[in-house]
Amino acid sequence: MEPAARQETGREKLLIRALKGAAVERPPVWLMRQAGRYLPEYRELRARAGSFLNLCYTPELAAEVTLQPLRRFAFDGAILFADLPLLADALGQKLDYREGEGPVLEPVRDEAALAQLSMARMHDRLGPVYETVRRLRRQLPEEVTLIGFAGAPWTLATYMVQGRGSQDHAEAKRWAFRDEVGFGRLIHLLVDATTEYLSRQIEAGAEAVQIFDSWASAMPEAGFARWCIEPVGMIVRRLKSRHPHVPVIAFPRAVGIFYAGFAEATGADAVGIDSCMPLSFAQKLQKSCTVQGNLDPQLLAVGGEPMRRESARILEMLGRGRFVFNLGHGILPDTPPEHVGALVEQVRAWRP
Amino acid sequence: MEPAARQETGREKLLIRALKGAAVERPPVWLMRQAGRYLPEYRELRARAGSFLNLCYTPELAAEVTLQPLRRFAFDGAILFADLPLLADALGQKLDYREGEGPVLEPVRDEAALAQLSMARMHDRLGPVYETVRRLRRQLPEEVTLIGFAGAPWTLATYMVQGRGSQDHAEAKRWAFRDEVGFGRLIHLLVDATTEYLSRQIEAGAEAVQIFDSWASAMPEAGFARWCIEPVGMIVRRLKSRHPHVPVIAFPRAVGIFYAGFAEATGADAVGIDSCMPLSFAQKLQKSCTVQGNLDPQLLAVGGEPMRRESARILEMLGRGRFVFNLGHGILPDTPPEHVGALVEQVRAWRP
Repeated sequence: MEPAARQETGREKLLIRALKGAAVERPPVWLMRQAGRYLPEYRELRARAGSFLNLCYTPELAAEVTLQPLRRFAFDGAILFADLPLLADALGQKLDYREGEGPVLEPVRDEAALAQLSMARMHDRLGPVYETVRRLRRQLPEEVTLIGFAGAPWTLATYMVQGRGSQDHAEAKRWAFRDEVGFGRLIHLLVDATTEYLSRQIEAGAEAVQIFDSWASAMPEAGFARWCIEPVGMIVRRLKSRHPHVPVIAFPRAVGIFYAGFAEATGADAVGIDSCMPLSFAQKLQKSCTVQGNLDPQLLAVGGEPMRRESARILEMLGRGRFVFNLGHGILPDTPPEHVGALVEQVRAWRP
Repeated sequence: MEPAARQETGREKLLIRALKGAAVERPPVWLMRQAGRYLPEYRELRARAGSFLNLCYTPELAAEVTLQPLRRFAFDGAILFADLPLLADALGQKLDYREGEGPVLEPVRDEAALAQLSMARMHDRLGPVYETVRRLRRQLPEEVTLIGFAGAPWTLATYMVQGRGSQDHAEAKRWAFRDEVGFGRLIHLLVDATTEYLSRQIEAGAEAVQIFDSWASAMPEAGFARWCIEPVGMIVRRLKSRHPHVPVIAFPRAVGIFYAGFAEATGADAVGIDSCMPLSFAQKLQKSCTVQGNLDPQLLAVGGEPMRRESARILEMLGRGRFVFNLGHGILPDTPPEHVGALVEQVRAWRP
């Protein structure tokens, strides 16, 4: 199959080709959280939607949110609107969203709580998400790539164990340090569930997927190998065996030196990089995978000449290699939408 | 003076010799936040002290807090008990500590607010801190090294601009991006003030100093060079010209790849490393400076075999080079003191 697929490359969408490492006419651009709170039309729809969970689980609404930024800006990719802890909810963990607090879960901290989780009904619960993907695939502009996503097992586990977002991930780390076998059961459940979740998104129409390991930088060396590289690698290999032509982007956020060899170890086609990675180091990564990033979201909020200058530097340093323009982290809620417009124009006008 | 000083090395304290790069009989050990909330005697004294500022500014109390862990554990170093925002207070910025919130400052976000700050009265305000240092020098066990400290200009600026601790340092970053000249004035004031502050600590008896750049990892490449490396380098060079034999430890926390060349660029004798740095990378740093770190504080809280195993690995990997055993970040408040005792014994028993 491989040679046939390669022959098709010329007809594939720009973002797909860039993720697969083909030479492209210009770097594609999309932005993490390009759908969301910085857009007045999102805030308006969010206010009408009732709960945040209802927004995520109503295909009509979730698809609309995904499409909103595409009506304003010429992005090359659109990422499914959903949230990382939905998978925990689908495994049976009680999930709630509280105003100003983000996701709140009934913590899973021992084997008894773990035994309550099951994949048996996950696809029923996640059915609306797959339906959102199907709608989007029909409604998106033809040249725009639809990106599915999930949290990496480690990052999802930090939410599930802590019960909410945290800075130190104390409970998850301590469980992992104290009881590798028990914590490993949770991680392996998440490897299985995440593989199925992403697989279904692909079957519904996702053309690429991104695995967010937002808290990967919390772990020392041995833990990073065991709880970040290994599980993500298992997911990527399983996805590749089922869907060999769907590119996988891994985003082990802010892991610095650990980025070296990460794509090779996991089999990911592309890695997302945060805003603090030196571009000379990112250039080295481009030899073995596509690099996606890394404008500082604060610079997008500032806009103007400081944003333009740094974006130009990123394009000059990375734009001639395997590259997708993005931020180093999600768009901030107080970002003026016109800054996004100016950025997308700048990136689309640049040529290698 | 240099050769004479080198001849004296044999008579210097263990921690000083290790920081200067001499071959030592065993790696010295001290822990960030070794004085503080995990100790019941600290909590008892803290409750009696009234405000946190009163605790920091009363030499008898601050010295007592610094000494408390030394009565329990055989540390090779003791770090002055004080807090990073005290310098902002001494420059005239209103500082308060609120329960459960940490330091709260009247934000400095423009040139008008900046113009209110002055070094004119800083030594008067900081006099009690210098007095604490003098007391400690008399009261510490003879073999224990007294470490002074200050925040790096960038990290102190994040507190001063934001007005409190934050995760994204949005206001400081945006000011730095928007107006390099104006933000540069704040940084240069802090370079001058920090140099004087550390110089006075040294004159009062501090035998080594550590510069904490806790938020150094928040900045992209160009900003890191300008707002972290350059100011810390200026401070180190000025200190070295006045006090050539006092070792300087710089701790640009969690900056990953940026650690390469950091000691050379700043002139620091030693760099603190966070828990996520791969030890093979840390070994490379040891060729040009002493490395201090990097046990995960969560492992110290967990204790037992997981802590023992990782500490042994750190000692095996780094203990034969230029090394000071420490944590990758401060001791957590819920750490059982007996874990600290077990760790110190393990490190002191190890031989290269």
